[in-house]
Amino acid sequence: MRNDRPQPGRRDASQSASAGASFHEMWRELLPLGRHPDSGGYRRYAWTAADTECRAWFKQQAEARGLAYEVDRNGNQWAWLGDPAEGNAVVTGSHLDSVPDGGAFDGPLGVVSSFAALDELRARGVTFARPLAIVNFGDEEGARFGLACVGSRLTGGRLTVEQAHLLTDGDGVTLPRAMEAAGYDPDAIGPDPERLARIGAFVELHVEQGRALDLSGDRVGIASAIWPHGRWRFDFRGEANHAGTTRLVDRRDPMLPYAETVLAARREARLAGAVATFGKIAVEPNGVNAIPSLVRGWLDSRAADQEALDTVVAGIEEAARAHAREHGVDLDIVRESFTPVVEFDHALRDELARILGKGTDLGDTGLKVPVLGTGAGHDAGILSGRIPTAMLFVRNPTGVSHSPAEFAEEDDCVAGVLALADVLEGLAAGDR
Amino acid sequence: MRNDRPQPGRRDASQSASAGASFHEMWRELLPLGRHPDSGGYRRYAWTAADTECRAWFKQQAEARGLAYEVDRNGNQWAWLGDPAEGNAVVTGSHLDSVPDGGAFDGPLGVVSSFAALDELRARGVTFARPLAIVNFGDEEGARFGLACVGSRLTGGRLTVEQAHLLTDGDGVTLPRAMEAAGYDPDAIGPDPERLARIGAFVELHVEQGRALDLSGDRVGIASAIWPHGRWRFDFRGEANHAGTTRLVDRRDPMLPYAETVLAARREARLAGAVATFGKIAVEPNGVNAIPSLVRGWLDSRAADQEALDTVVAGIEEAARAHAREHGVDLDIVRESFTPVVEFDHALRDELARILGKGTDLGDTGLKVPVLGTGAGHDAGILSGRIPTAMLFVRNPTGVSHSPAEFAEEDDCVAGVLALADVLEGLAAGDR
Repeated sequence: MRNDRPQPGRRDASQSASAGASFHEMWRELLPLGRHPDSGGYRRYAWTAADTECRAWFKQQAEARGLAYEVDRNGNQWAWLGDPAEGNAVVTGSHLDSVPDGGAFDGPLGVVSSFAALDELRARGVTFARPLAIVNFGDEEGARFGLACVGSRLTGGRLTVEQAHLLTDGDGVTLPRAMEAAGYDPDAIGPDPERLARIGAFVELHVEQGRALDLSGDRVGIASAIWPHGRWRFDFRGEANHAGTTRLVDRRDPMLPYAETVLAARREARLAGAVATFGKIAVEPNGVNAIPSLVRGWLDSRAADQEALDTVVAGIEEAARAHAREHGVDLDIVRESFTPVVEFDHALRDELARILGKGTDLGDTGLKVPVLGTGAGHDAGILSGRIPTAMLFVRNPTGVSHSPAEFAEEDDCVAGVLALADVLEGLAAGDR
Repeated sequence: MRNDRPQPGRRDASQSASAGASFHEMWRELLPLGRHPDSGGYRRYAWTAADTECRAWFKQQAEARGLAYEVDRNGNQWAWLGDPAEGNAVVTGSHLDSVPDGGAFDGPLGVVSSFAALDELRARGVTFARPLAIVNFGDEEGARFGLACVGSRLTGGRLTVEQAHLLTDGDGVTLPRAMEAAGYDPDAIGPDPERLARIGAFVELHVEQGRALDLSGDRVGIASAIWPHGRWRFDFRGEANHAGTTRLVDRRDPMLPYAETVLAARREARLAGAVATFGKIAVEPNGVNAIPSLVRGWLDSRAADQEALDTVVAGIEEAARAHAREHGVDLDIVRESFTPVVEFDHALRDELARILGKGTDLGDTGLKVPVLGTGAGHDAGILSGRIPTAMLFVRNPTGVSHSPAEFAEEDDCVAGVLALADVLEGLAAGDR
């Protein structure tokens, strides 16, 4: 049995049949879209057919609820209740795209929960003093163009139009051409400060991508901060040669310093209490009987603070350079992306804790909603410098994410819906 | 300056303008076919458009010389001078396909040299007492279907029709379908003992894929043996997970034991005086922010004798298993191919040495043609158990092979043509 503490939230999952049914039906509809039959994982890459299917589903959900549907200049989808021009809107939502062979929850859980929370609030008979919106940010995972959170970065002015035009997928298709092929106007993309100015708070619900809630026995938590994180590309260039006839002493085999660097990354991360991963590799010519000419490995590393991250990456780079020299291999290291630490808005975070603490029947027992940091990047993190943002996490019993095995119990998902409903009610009922 | 010893061969390269001109013209024609504009390497994979172009060139060369052209049941191309039915034929040739981004010489040098040697012999006015043939074996490199020397294996009965039907390329196209698409009858493939019975000797000329001749200062050498060699596939299966949020202790990251195994392979090979290479890798899902679920690495290993090879591979397997256990990763090791040591026919080898030693003006100075082993597999090795085979190697000044940088001096290539012409003359002028 799981160690379940008394849970916050207005009512137990079993007490809200409408939220559960609404969640269940939407979840079932979305489940087959973009799912690969062999891996069982999702391949919902930005502006592909699978992504288009997910986006059509979003539009349909908005319209079925009588919400005002619109697509912004960067392809993000919005569903409005109330007049956006009023300003100080409360926005919730997440994304529908996936990593390669990703799970069903990372992204879609936040979007589905947003619609289900709205259904719950309508069932409660709540009326809203502030405009409300549900958003689906485009290309959050960056699986296709190599840069995460493109939709929110563009809108927030944290990616220039010129930079966006340089984004190219593995088949040589640029982002503008991909958007155009999906039916959008690539000439429209760019920063959208007017839109952001109308938002008073953005709350993103997300499946937890670790086991903190499982270990503490909580269904729902609130985010405190996103660890600083970055991606570095290591290009080890040696000399292609015949694997059968080239003496070891004559080789310049880039696979060897790559292997040493993989091991160094684990060592440095362990010493610093951080994480470091080589999960993607490209080898040329990638033939069984050929010493590679090029081994390109991508490092993803994150730590609780900037100093720890700098120490980890410096240690890995030093090891890589030493081993490259040892094997007569050239090495280029390129930082492909970097996101500094994100502290979510403290006032909004405390407001969520207050709402969820008060909302529960157990509020006077001193129950605290756990507040946790995370190593994952999110659109809420990207926008946090522009508008007040907060995040809710839903328990992930295995901690597994970015995998077909990613999972959350339906009861926990419904608890997330109810917590989000409480938050939206608490915020939207506040003073303008 | 290179350390050039006095060279064997009837005459110096400069003394045979016809062989040089013939070689040069054919080489120039073949050079652009299947060459990738970015890498500068060749992508002449079996039964592709590039391969078809090379094969059309072969047919044209045969017909231009009035040779009888035919394609055997396995798609190998033959050009005959004299009646094959007479038997005891002297055959020379090699292959025209390439590894991914391979060089211009591995394979084509042997085919071009064969035609040029025939031109040289005609210029010398030589007539032949035995039938002569030039052959282009199909799919020698195995770049497309993962198994080397498919054409000669099928002909020699060393690959069954059933096994051949299972060969599948990276796009899921089987060998029979690929041959059919290239215009050949896939129902015809199979062993061809009648054809082999007509061959008295097969001599394959090849660019050296090491630096033995460069170090000894010789233009041309004779093969003694091919090292035993094999390919093993290592499947490390862990658990895909989020690279940013999964604690190190919760990971089952297959990249780590893979890296340890790459380093173990180098260690074991060095200890045994052998070679071992991980040059090909496939990672799933291969995302920057995903811990891999699968890292599949291919080991190519070769050694001077069977015992040394067994020791190397056992040592690598042991290290791989230990490190997989340490990281909670499952490991399957599959031997995908294996070729025992090949000792070339001693009588034919000695005959070549005699011909090349006698043929030179310096024959009475005690000059020896160097005899060398090689780690590379060849069609001549595959057929050596069926018919007498021998090989000539042409100096490779850098030793680089299976790379766009693969190179041989044109003077050395012409010396190879003249040596091959001497050998063909010496053999075909012999008793039936």
